[in-house]
Amino acid sequence: MNDRIHNFSAGPSALPTAVMQEMQEGLLSYRGSGMSVMEMSHRGDLFMGIIEEARTRIKRLYGLSDDYEVLFVHGGASLQFAMIPMNFIGEGQIAEYIETGTWSTKAIAEARIQNKGVRVAASSGDREFCYIPKVSDISADAPFVHMTTNNTVRGTQWHDLPDTGGVPLIADMSSDILSRPLDVSPFGMIYGGAQKNMGPSGTAVVILRRDMVEKIPQTLPTMLSYRTYVDKESMFNTPATFPIYAISLVTKWLEETMGGLAAVEAVNKRKAGALYTLIDEDDFYCGTADKASRSLMNVTFRLKDRELEPLFVEQSLASGLAGLKGHKSVGGIRASIYNAVSEASVAALCEFMNDFRRKHR
Amino acid sequence: MNDRIHNFSAGPSALPTAVMQEMQEGLLSYRGSGMSVMEMSHRGDLFMGIIEEARTRIKRLYGLSDDYEVLFVHGGASLQFAMIPMNFIGEGQIAEYIETGTWSTKAIAEARIQNKGVRVAASSGDREFCYIPKVSDISADAPFVHMTTNNTVRGTQWHDLPDTGGVPLIADMSSDILSRPLDVSPFGMIYGGAQKNMGPSGTAVVILRRDMVEKIPQTLPTMLSYRTYVDKESMFNTPATFPIYAISLVTKWLEETMGGLAAVEAVNKRKAGALYTLIDEDDFYCGTADKASRSLMNVTFRLKDRELEPLFVEQSLASGLAGLKGHKSVGGIRASIYNAVSEASVAALCEFMNDFRRKHR
Repeated sequence: MNDRIHNFSAGPSALPTAVMQEMQEGLLSYRGSGMSVMEMSHRGDLFMGIIEEARTRIKRLYGLSDDYEVLFVHGGASLQFAMIPMNFIGEGQIAEYIETGTWSTKAIAEARIQNKGVRVAASSGDREFCYIPKVSDISADAPFVHMTTNNTVRGTQWHDLPDTGGVPLIADMSSDILSRPLDVSPFGMIYGGAQKNMGPSGTAVVILRRDMVEKIPQTLPTMLSYRTYVDKESMFNTPATFPIYAISLVTKWLEETMGGLAAVEAVNKRKAGALYTLIDEDDFYCGTADKASRSLMNVTFRLKDRELEPLFVEQSLASGLAGLKGHKSVGGIRASIYNAVSEASVAALCEFMNDFRRKHR
Repeated sequence: MNDRIHNFSAGPSALPTAVMQEMQEGLLSYRGSGMSVMEMSHRGDLFMGIIEEARTRIKRLYGLSDDYEVLFVHGGASLQFAMIPMNFIGEGQIAEYIETGTWSTKAIAEARIQNKGVRVAASSGDREFCYIPKVSDISADAPFVHMTTNNTVRGTQWHDLPDTGGVPLIADMSSDILSRPLDVSPFGMIYGGAQKNMGPSGTAVVILRRDMVEKIPQTLPTMLSYRTYVDKESMFNTPATFPIYAISLVTKWLEETMGGLAAVEAVNKRKAGALYTLIDEDDFYCGTADKASRSLMNVTFRLKDRELEPLFVEQSLASGLAGLKGHKSVGGIRASIYNAVSEASVAALCEFMNDFRRKHR
């Protein structure tokens, strides 16, 4: 394991080394079956046990009642951007979307492509999405309010949910799903691509409240209706079996090794706290998000002397710290510290940042 | 490797053991990078090399000119059933579909759900899809003719392409893609879920002729337009990185170990030939497909005494032969012998079938 790098990639991103080892051991023969999880029928007892375990552990981690369905849907979050308006914005309805950066903007665009009723209820676009906006006057007639709980590109995160006056929230949690406890009661739907906090890319996890299912029209293409995934328990066609297997192992690790989401959140706060504290010590580094809106998952910052940024990235990589270059649309530095990024990795990054500052101050 | 089972699963199905070993070795650190392929950015040099290799090897195996794009699309073949009519059946047009079993029927249903113009040009539904029908009088105005080249449930396969009078063929090749050489010139599009002949489930491979791209409407949801995958080289969002990695290894194995598709086809003919020969020796076993339409990929048969079938399945499993139970909709026995099922596995099955017949004749 000594050759594992400190991986700060924004996604796909680090998975727990213990999970990777378990996958490696069983790769050619899962539990003595003589075949890999990749090679077995999705309708056989072995895989049915795996998908059930993934589903049950997600329900238990979030404390979900039977009012919620856990679905494994194809296509990542981006396909959900298109499916949500198809499924939930009816004729004459206007959905409320909160605009907090790249991904929420894409979600809005997909509703508009379908000529659906869309209102931008709040936006932080006036200051390059560096903060979480205040939300007020949500229409009581709206079918839902869409939000992005964590914004990977700009490094912002919602720490308190907006008041929607009872209108169901639909939340893209791709980059902070399963990273902290959650009161799920305001949510009609929670979704996320697997590839940040849960497993390899290739599937999205969708948590759907049962009353939302009744609103889905009957005439959608089968694979684009959430009802299909509810009715067929995510097995209308072959699901992404290996990513779901990884999710079953990651959620087991969250429960049994990490001790559940409250414990995970505490670790995530320590990791982010260490980095933000270092950044705030002087003006050599400068955080890009407003302090109250800072993300525990993606720590985005600039160097006061921006010309040093390429050297920072180059030398960090040479020191065994990967994936620190900021998103190409904004530049700068980004440390993505999802659940699987260890405190030791963050400590190594802090040490590097400290050294780099001393040498280039 | 001694504990690998003989795996005749219909899909997800056996992958080459050598490919599985290579995946296993690099699972925690791909080529010394310190991270798994699952954990790396899809936009980094390492993964860009992997997806390019998968694309290039598919192009080379089929001898594709630059008129063809190789795309990695989310959602398996079933999502393509919905995307094809969206992308290619225009206002007032009527597409021709050939009905040869379960999957082609589903493809037709998805076009009808969208109220698209559909004609069933030929069907073998009159005799439970046990043969490949003759096709004539295709309308010259049709935007495409849709076919399923291999029918996994009934064990039939097209051995000669239908004459469409120049109308482009769109073929679901999920279960025989990359199993034999192909004259691609009649095809506007070829597609298949990865999980039979190419890799783990979670992505579909789509081979699209460039002139088809021009026919795609401008206003489709982004993730449901093949144009997006062409323009963004399958990277509009995070593709299913690990399945694509597996495809790069499987196609390398097809080229470098197996020696290309002509050599693969010769092996596949020997494997199927051995089984069909044994089946035809007397009436203990009985093939379910007409001889001229028999599949090289899925050998379906019944026992004359059907009451012996459960015992056949049970004893085969005890002998290290997995996945032989027929599809639940038709019963009987099915041996799926995709590229990765070795001649040794087929020999083991023949030996078992011979013994079973001797004991129960």
